[in-house]
Amino acid sequence: MKTRRVFLQRASLSAMALTVPVLNPFSVMADQISEYAKDSKTLRVAIMGLGSYGTRVAEAIQSCQRTKLVGVISGTPSKVVAWREKYGIPEKNCYNYENFDAIKDNPDIDAVYVITPNALHKDQVIRVAKAGKHAICEKPMAVNAADGQAMVEACKAAGVHLLIGYRMHFEPNTLEVIRMRKAGEFGDIRFFQGLSGFTIGDPTQWRLDPKLSGGGAMMDIGIYSINGARYMIGEEPIWVTAQEVKTNPEKFKEGIDETITFQLGFPSGVIASCLSTYNMNNLDRFYLNGSKGWAEMQPSTGYGPIKGETNKGPLTEPIVTHQTVQMDEMAAIIFDGKKPEVPVDGEEGVKDMKIIDAIFKAVETGEKVLLNLS
Amino acid sequence: MKTRRVFLQRASLSAMALTVPVLNPFSVMADQISEYAKDSKTLRVAIMGLGSYGTRVAEAIQSCQRTKLVGVISGTPSKVVAWREKYGIPEKNCYNYENFDAIKDNPDIDAVYVITPNALHKDQVIRVAKAGKHAICEKPMAVNAADGQAMVEACKAAGVHLLIGYRMHFEPNTLEVIRMRKAGEFGDIRFFQGLSGFTIGDPTQWRLDPKLSGGGAMMDIGIYSINGARYMIGEEPIWVTAQEVKTNPEKFKEGIDETITFQLGFPSGVIASCLSTYNMNNLDRFYLNGSKGWAEMQPSTGYGPIKGETNKGPLTEPIVTHQTVQMDEMAAIIFDGKKPEVPVDGEEGVKDMKIIDAIFKAVETGEKVLLNLS
Repeated sequence: MKTRRVFLQRASLSAMALTVPVLNPFSVMADQISEYAKDSKTLRVAIMGLGSYGTRVAEAIQSCQRTKLVGVISGTPSKVVAWREKYGIPEKNCYNYENFDAIKDNPDIDAVYVITPNALHKDQVIRVAKAGKHAICEKPMAVNAADGQAMVEACKAAGVHLLIGYRMHFEPNTLEVIRMRKAGEFGDIRFFQGLSGFTIGDPTQWRLDPKLSGGGAMMDIGIYSINGARYMIGEEPIWVTAQEVKTNPEKFKEGIDETITFQLGFPSGVIASCLSTYNMNNLDRFYLNGSKGWAEMQPSTGYGPIKGETNKGPLTEPIVTHQTVQMDEMAAIIFDGKKPEVPVDGEEGVKDMKIIDAIFKAVETGEKVLLNLS
Repeated sequence: MKTRRVFLQRASLSAMALTVPVLNPFSVMADQISEYAKDSKTLRVAIMGLGSYGTRVAEAIQSCQRTKLVGVISGTPSKVVAWREKYGIPEKNCYNYENFDAIKDNPDIDAVYVITPNALHKDQVIRVAKAGKHAICEKPMAVNAADGQAMVEACKAAGVHLLIGYRMHFEPNTLEVIRMRKAGEFGDIRFFQGLSGFTIGDPTQWRLDPKLSGGGAMMDIGIYSINGARYMIGEEPIWVTAQEVKTNPEKFKEGIDETITFQLGFPSGVIASCLSTYNMNNLDRFYLNGSKGWAEMQPSTGYGPIKGETNKGPLTEPIVTHQTVQMDEMAAIIFDGKKPEVPVDGEEGVKDMKIIDAIFKAVETGEKVLLNLS
């Protein structure tokens, strides 16, 4: 199966126009399989939390070169049955939230991808670490920086990797803009603008329950502008100011932010002006302004395709399935010690959590909150 | 001459594709001249301040239907000579800054358009009013709201109009977006973003001298985002927060703002997030987001052409010379009592000045400043 997956992934990357999949795996010649894929170890992953994003990741893994979905952790037996059938997962690799510590005795699972409500991440990741498995944790890594730091320390103590699901860090057009910025093609960076939001539906979902989400739009979607400001500008912010507006306090209860505008100040004098909202139609825009050029991306962080333009023309990097690339890159980080262009480790996640903590404090106090992320 | 100007203006408005001007005025038939133009009084204007923007206005007036440049007020005799020759201005309509109060005895001038450094507007407008002439004042109307209010009162006491040079209030694509918003085509407005800025050159110019400008980028270019937020959203802000960044204190001295991000809160919960800067390459973008649609303009306030798009497609209103339309509309306001779609009177100018005062206070105190513009 792996051979065919490798070929399909290669085909989809190299020939974007090819929409009819090659169905005969025997047509794959040995030299079409990259040395990389041949020599590298496959990351065997269990997904914890079989919701809509977990489903998306599972589907994306099917196109991976060196990542395989081998297990599940779920509180819903019917979902486990469905996933076992769909992905050929052996029963011995299926756990629930009570018994998953036993994963430590399972030699066929390398890592657990935690895709559960935010407030559960901390304890779940620490349990994964204690079971001796690498932890991949969906963003936001936690509901505050202290919890994030505890996760980092637990994984360090257990000698396992903690990686955060920052799929944009591997997205080709995003990386091209970062490359251009590093090469000085935009000159001195002056301004970044991030607009991240959408109109959230079902008011009963966990994302609108502060006990499970730890916050509203900021935790879920605003974090893209926070993280984007950092990787687009290439500095760490030193202060933050923020303003909240709530038009529907019934839907967006105490502890659930509806709309927040926030500003980040950076050491060089760059300023980032961002919007996080659960109450506007799809907003997914980044804009980077420098003394010599600019980049604009829209959509900038959606599932794809990411589109953008710079002063030099449209961005034309390959369109990829973000989660497919993310998982294979994470395999390389874990097994080969690869250093990604933009970090995805726990420390990176803690930085975003510190900024979110500061944004909430700035909203509460109305004051500029200083940051120290170094 | 007027007849030909009328025809040319009409031709340029009604047949955008026509680029070869009709050179024979005798070809104009009587019925091609609008009733409006035939019956209406011509606004005879003197320009005070013959700098680059004064020059632009003078050129634009040449295409007006019912506005005529008839006089100048300048401290530079050589400029007066050049303008007299170029525009056929009689010597008796030429004044300097010492003697222009004598304009009150000149029956051939209806209005003075004050296009001088900001800090001079107040005294000059009050002198114009006392001379019994209508005052048109370039934006910003003054260096603070108190001065603006004094100007409003002086003009009221003198029984003359005070109009502010808000050329965008007459720009067709801008008016189309306002029409769509009023018609509910964007649904409930949720968010406005205005980016207004450019990299300012010559450090010795009056705009960088706080005694003459009363402020930096905010007074000059940031005001477009302030004013734009109000006419695009259609409400008056109730609070403001602001953050300043200064990377070049040598060029941007005390009292001259380089870059300010500011946020305006509106009664309905709409939030505006804006940027004002003298330190970034041309930034001229408006974005309006509603529950059913959106509008985006870029350039949004430059001299034109204004370009934009809404959820319904590109904006396709006629391209006009802003100052030409502005002056003829101001003639209609003054002589016909016409009410423009968006006000351009002194009270409108004071509202923007109150917001600028509040932005500077918010920068200074770091606090949210409440506004009462009603």
